[in-house]
Amino acid sequence: MNTSSLQATFLSIRSHKAFELFVVFVIIFSALIIGAKTYNIPQQLWTVMVWLDWAITVIFLLEIIIRFLGEENKLRFFQSGWNVFDTLIVVVSLVPIENSDLALVGRLVRIFRVLRMVSIIPELRLLLNSLLKALPQLGYVVLLMFIIFYIYAAIGTTFFASINRELWGDISISMLTLFRVMTFEDWTDVMYETMEHYSLSWAFFISFIFFTAFAFLNMVIGIVVGVLEQENQRIRAEEDIEQGRVTLEVLHEEILRLRAQVTDATKEKAR
Amino acid sequence: MNTSSLQATFLSIRSHKAFELFVVFVIIFSALIIGAKTYNIPQQLWTVMVWLDWAITVIFLLEIIIRFLGEENKLRFFQSGWNVFDTLIVVVSLVPIENSDLALVGRLVRIFRVLRMVSIIPELRLLLNSLLKALPQLGYVVLLMFIIFYIYAAIGTTFFASINRELWGDISISMLTLFRVMTFEDWTDVMYETMEHYSLSWAFFISFIFFTAFAFLNMVIGIVVGVLEQENQRIRAEEDIEQGRVTLEVLHEEILRLRAQVTDATKEKAR
Amino acid sequence: MNTSSLQATFLSIRSHKAFELFVVFVIIFSALIIGAKTYNIPQQLWTVMVWLDWAITVIFLLEIIIRFLGEENKLRFFQSGWNVFDTLIVVVSLVPIENSDLALVGRLVRIFRVLRMVSIIPELRLLLNSLLKALPQLGYVVLLMFIIFYIYAAIGTTFFASINRELWGDISISMLTLFRVMTFEDWTDVMYETMEHYSLSWAFFISFIFFTAFAFLNMVIGIVVGVLEQENQRIRAEEDIEQGRVTLEVLHEEILRLRAQVTDATKEKAR
Amino acid sequence: MNTSSLQATFLSIRSHKAFELFVVFVIIFSALIIGAKTYNIPQQLWTVMVWLDWAITVIFLLEIIIRFLGEENKLRFFQSGWNVFDTLIVVVSLVPIENSDLALVGRLVRIFRVLRMVSIIPELRLLLNSLLKALPQLGYVVLLMFIIFYIYAAIGTTFFASINRELWGDISISMLTLFRVMTFEDWTDVMYETMEHYSLSWAFFISFIFFTAFAFLNMVIGIVVGVLEQENQRIRAEEDIEQGRVTLEVLHEEILRLRAQVTDATKEKAR
Repeated sequence: MNTSSLQATFLSIRSHKAFELFVVFVIIFSALIIGAKTYNIPQQLWTVMVWLDWAITVIFLLEIIIRFLGEENKLRFFQSGWNVFDTLIVVVSLVPIENSDLALVGRLVRIFRVLRMVSIIPELRLLLNSLLKALPQLGYVVLLMFIIFYIYAAIGTTFFASINRELWGDISISMLTLFRVMTFEDWTDVMYETMEHYSLSWAFFISFIFFTAFAFLNMVIGIVVGVLEQENQRIRAEEDIEQGRVTLEVLHEEILRLRAQVTDATKEKAR
Repeated sequence: MNTSSLQATFLSIRSHKAFELFVVFVIIFSALIIGAKTYNIPQQLWTVMVWLDWAITVIFLLEIIIRFLGEENKLRFFQSGWNVFDTLIVVVSLVPIENSDLALVGRLVRIFRVLRMVSIIPELRLLLNSLLKALPQLGYVVLLMFIIFYIYAAIGTTFFASINRELWGDISISMLTLFRVMTFEDWTDVMYETMEHYSLSWAFFISFIFFTAFAFLNMVIGIVVGVLEQENQRIRAEEDIEQGRVTLEVLHEEILRLRAQVTDATKEKAR
Repeated sequence: MNTSSLQATFLSIRSHKAFELFVVFVIIFSALIIGAKTYNIPQQLWTVMVWLDWAITVIFLLEIIIRFLGEENKLRFFQSGWNVFDTLIVVVSLVPIENSDLALVGRLVRIFRVLRMVSIIPELRLLLNSLLKALPQLGYVVLLMFIIFYIYAAIGTTFFASINRELWGDISISMLTLFRVMTFEDWTDVMYETMEHYSLSWAFFISFIFFTAFAFLNMVIGIVVGVLEQENQRIRAEEDIEQGRVTLEVLHEEILRLRAQVTDATKEKAR
Repeated sequence: MNTSSLQATFLSIRSHKAFELFVVFVIIFSALIIGAKTYNIPQQLWTVMVWLDWAITVIFLLEIIIRFLGEENKLRFFQSGWNVFDTLIVVVSLVPIENSDLALVGRLVRIFRVLRMVSIIPELRLLLNSLLKALPQLGYVVLLMFIIFYIYAAIGTTFFASINRELWGDISISMLTLFRVMTFEDWTDVMYETMEHYSLSWAFFISFIFFTAFAFLNMVIGIVVGVLEQENQRIRAEEDIEQGRVTLEVLHEEILRLRAQVTDATKEKAR
């Protein structure tokens, strides 16, 4: 009985708007500290910041404990990826690390705290989920694009490795170079260099740009059409509810029933 | 009685097409003077221009006075943001400023007069309003994009500040550098420099480009879908009016009423 | 009688598919000669080309004469912009020009002959017409964009003219520089230079990029929505024809008529 | 009887999911070897790879023989472009080439083996087919774009060839330069160089950018509208099936039939 009432108390704290706003405020404050640390700040302020950092970690720890205790089903708590992410971030922050190598990890974990903004604001979580949901339907276009990249990188390495090892040294460097060409970043410098040895190499670059632009266009259209389809389905579902399910079939059946009635009435009279 | 007729007179002036066209002409003329002043012009022409400038200010002052007097409800006049903007531009132009620092402000105010084009042409005002209306629905995507920028800038400063302080010195400079990377402007130069120290830093840049491109794409789709939805609603509203509100429900009810009548008629006869 | 039959003969020549194909072939051939002339070619070949050039001019002249004589209403011939364009191109080609200055005009006219491809192929003419039709509805967005450019160019010249006269010397040079910034072409070089004097000038560039990108986006959406609307109207018009104009109203009226009949029948029996 | 059962056996092998998966695995393995060869690898590993390469060729040969024998109609096998492509790739791989010139061809053929991924995975084949199907409807836009490029290249060569032969030497080099301008790659460098001789040459570049951007936009819209139209047709076809073909016409006919019945009944009673 006691645990149940305690859980209810924590649930009410957790559901309170003020609680959420306070956590958002702490996350923003934590982000500001991360930003401030990149400037040259006096030693005293730095000490204050280290203390504030610990205060934030403690607040986050308390917040997760409250949210965990407020959860009715303790097991379900860790089934949500966001809860696992939040807990990990806080737990790693708690580990006291002085060693220089691990200190870097500590700093990175503090940076990733900003991502907690996404885990705490439902609208952002929804947005990210819908982004991730759009990805799989693009799977085959991405695969096709990768195949295009791989073949061009292999051809590029075969022909141009002897010209410039820094751009075409091996297949992974070549793929990076091709990504650069795709973004049009000084791609003519890359092309002119190869054209000095192979005067027809422009065909390699122009065809690559066409293929990737075309595949990319297809990708964009795929997303747009997917989004519009969802939109249309939503609208049609709304319309069905609006219309109270009076479809043309319903009308048809009513009219047929009416005709049967009239036929019966006519026959009866004829008798 | 006198004031009321005066107000009506001013309202008729203000509503006159010629009045609007004259003001548009003065604004264009004012813009041309601003442009002309950036060229090397002889001293005499300059003096003429200063006089023309004052003439424009006086015309604008008269125009706003006419529009103000023509307004029935004087208080409502300043509730419109555009009226406040127009008045401010004119009032600041009237302040005599000789001091070099404030002279700059004077020149800027004269440049912003060109914006009066938007306040005077209703179609442009409508366009800008619809642009501004589209912004809030993008709020969360912009927030997500800012979070991506902030996290990458923090990571970038942590790792690359020692390599190039001019590009990664503090978090605001890093964000500017990342904006540059997003526009693909010499982004490979930025990347190659960091790859000399961290050979895996390409993953930082490629992933950043993917995330921002993806978020940007989402933004564009958000706007397009929003616009299309408004379009569809407008079309559906039109169709409803067109059809005189004869929906399938109306037909259904008519048929049911008819069946009831036939049923009644049949029963009566049976009696 | 004689003129009329002659006109009919020319009309039949002109309508013949082979005639059109022959003209297209001559235009392509003419384009190839223009291209070939840009290479270093031996003197003899050059002489041949000059002769071919004259042959093409003569063929074009004959073609226009045939098309003109084949036209029933001679006045209407020059009401079509494409016919005027074709005639102009041929007439200017006929003027014998040896003078070096005018020779350039002659070469340009020969280049514009390639545009005859558009005037001769109906599908291309249709495409260009639909492109031109889409322009006016974008008028106000273009005006808004021009205002943005003008204001930023005026501000840019005011502040940065003393830093780099070649980029910000006067308002037209500044507008060219801003167009360059809009295309992201080495825009950071432009920005970094100004930031050495005004450390906040990044706000000028970032805001400019945002405004133009936003206006541009609006333009694209404007075109897309316009195209889709035309598409929808076309589809709805098709559906109306398909349905033989049986709308819900027609059904409604039929049912009302039926009810009136049933009512009459019931009343009659009651008498 | 024997050949028929053999063919059935091969068909069952070929249709087996494990067979397809195995071939996909071999293609991926083949791609990895191609990639690995671009790195500096010890001589022993290289020898292993040459052996693996032969093993892959043999597996591909066996696979195609199985697929060929499994085909009921032997002639139809080579009517599929993909089968011809697969066979060519394998046959050329079998030719023993030691000569350095042909060795390059051998390497290229091995690279194109990766494309077999497209021929073996049905979803990718479908994707590529739909991409190719979208091309013809863009034919005229591509032609228009080519005409724009050709005319600008001819003008560019006429005026700028004397300024920079490497960029404007002949019509094909000029077209490459214009493609570079279209991708915004250091286009201002190209422009500034020409502006030193012709101060109005900015109009050449700006107008070119506008025309190509406009034509490109038209192309994108063409694809999007085409895709959406297909989508709409699919949806309408689905709706027709869903509705069991009860259209407004069907209802109209039913009501007319009913009215006729009522009319008959009324008349009969009147007699």
